[in-house]
Amino acid sequence: MKVFITGGGGMLGHRLARALATRGKLVDESGTLQAITQIKVFDTGFPAERDARLVYVQGDLAAPGALADAMDADTDTVFHLAAVVSAGAEAEFDLGMRINIEGTRTVLELCRRLNAPPRVLFTSSVAAFGGAMPDVLDDATTPTPQSSYGTQKVIGEYLVNDYTRKGFIDGRSMRLPTIVVRPGRPNLAASSFASSVLREPLNGEISKCPVADSTGVWLLSPARAIDAFMHAHDLPAAAWGSYRVVNLPGITATVREMVDALGRIAGRERAALVQDVPDERIRAIVKTWPTKLRTPRANAMGFKADPDIEAVIRAHIADHDIKL
Amino acid sequence: MKVFITGGGGMLGHRLARALATRGKLVDESGTLQAITQIKVFDTGFPAERDARLVYVQGDLAAPGALADAMDADTDTVFHLAAVVSAGAEAEFDLGMRINIEGTRTVLELCRRLNAPPRVLFTSSVAAFGGAMPDVLDDATTPTPQSSYGTQKVIGEYLVNDYTRKGFIDGRSMRLPTIVVRPGRPNLAASSFASSVLREPLNGEISKCPVADSTGVWLLSPARAIDAFMHAHDLPAAAWGSYRVVNLPGITATVREMVDALGRIAGRERAALVQDVPDERIRAIVKTWPTKLRTPRANAMGFKADPDIEAVIRAHIADHDIKL
Repeated sequence: MKVFITGGGGMLGHRLARALATRGKLVDESGTLQAITQIKVFDTGFPAERDARLVYVQGDLAAPGALADAMDADTDTVFHLAAVVSAGAEAEFDLGMRINIEGTRTVLELCRRLNAPPRVLFTSSVAAFGGAMPDVLDDATTPTPQSSYGTQKVIGEYLVNDYTRKGFIDGRSMRLPTIVVRPGRPNLAASSFASSVLREPLNGEISKCPVADSTGVWLLSPARAIDAFMHAHDLPAAAWGSYRVVNLPGITATVREMVDALGRIAGRERAALVQDVPDERIRAIVKTWPTKLRTPRANAMGFKADPDIEAVIRAHIADHDIKL
Repeated sequence: MKVFITGGGGMLGHRLARALATRGKLVDESGTLQAITQIKVFDTGFPAERDARLVYVQGDLAAPGALADAMDADTDTVFHLAAVVSAGAEAEFDLGMRINIEGTRTVLELCRRLNAPPRVLFTSSVAAFGGAMPDVLDDATTPTPQSSYGTQKVIGEYLVNDYTRKGFIDGRSMRLPTIVVRPGRPNLAASSFASSVLREPLNGEISKCPVADSTGVWLLSPARAIDAFMHAHDLPAAAWGSYRVVNLPGITATVREMVDALGRIAGRERAALVQDVPDERIRAIVKTWPTKLRTPRANAMGFKADPDIEAVIRAHIADHDIKL
């Protein structure tokens, strides 16, 4: 099977590519495990450390023809992860529309023209929800995004649904919780604190937390997200039915719960590196986010959340060989 | 105030334009009734009988520049009705995407660049709903369209919401019930029977009904639809809040109820002109449509349904000077 990953240079995309290379197999449409013969990653840039098992193609989703040239006609599976992220799509509206809507349409149109309808895995986001919401969201909650990013992701879901209904692709959309712990450095995203509050203290650095410690986060670890992508792919079409969107399971942890768990695992001194530095702008954004979801559909389909926040922290420590 | 109507040559668009010309006023953003100084209708074609109070501009939403040339920079209000209809968007997928998604994006981008953010009224549809649904839908029901047309309308709603949130426009989307009685001839739309079952007998012609007489239709008369467009425009932004979509009120009538009402108003002989000619293809489509909605949001905002099916029939008779 030939696999193509847009956004294959990003944190999740590259990790997915390596996980697929290690696994070496995916379920085909007949339900049989088949060997993966090629994994092509497409992005504007890639990590310095390349993986010899992957085919790297540098290109821009917004450039006419770049993606068309890159995607082989006998591609079986497309993971479409490329996106302008939330803060970016909010700051640069036109760029967000170009990549997150036009880019997604370009991907779907190319998929439609492959030799056979491919499986298409689309990463949507819990940013589909926002504003006035019930305390606990569920599978029936109507998306009311409060950001251009969330809007564009919901539009992508509807396109994936309709391309699937028409038989052009076999599409599946997953609404991802906030990914915790992201590796790397703090960034301008309003959600940056959710990883920083754990990551920086584990690196022995101070973490400035802009939100109240009662703030809840709906979260999923990178490893569980990758598991979800592969599980979403391997499920038979019948398991998805006619509505090809799923709210992935997650867990809810408050900042206080994260810091307490950090203290239990890494010691009080590291936990004390989290400093309270209120930022009203970030608080205002974060308070419009959902913090709790019931996900019976995903659970029935076999998707798994992390067991608890301690497991998320321990996985990050193991992934990055952090010495305590 | 300057008004611009896309799809202004269509049945609803042209009727709206004439109603606005007769009314002569719209509420501006300060809540004051202002005189309408221009009503421009944009479409690929127009009724033979022109109205001297309107400015007609022939053009194609898909043609680069046609709309940009037509829309004055000091336009205050845009009614965006132009669309490839349901059967058309299903038969010609690419055309539907080009007009219903790219065309809507073109309209919104032009609106964003006017001298001041205009009010934008977008006609969505009850085709937003379909497939597995509760018996009675309500304002919390998540759209699950089962057609490309419905998908494209829902995507338009999300775009209108986000352009509004960004302050580019003051947008309002209305999900229209099936419009009954449409003037004209039967067409290939699966919903054609809903008007035909009344219109043809009133014209003394046979009507072939493809669905069971227990089939329900969620409907609104053309006159009430026009009232709704103007009411949606005149409401203050605060009445809409941050979610700019409303399910318009309608009434549910079964085919049997329509034919019975027709008999009471126009006599048994006309009612007997409705013949049962089952069409499984149309039955299969129609059975995925919602037939009953609770619309508390629209009701609270002051939108009005027709009082009953008899009133709908009498309005059609009066509109078209039909002699009984």
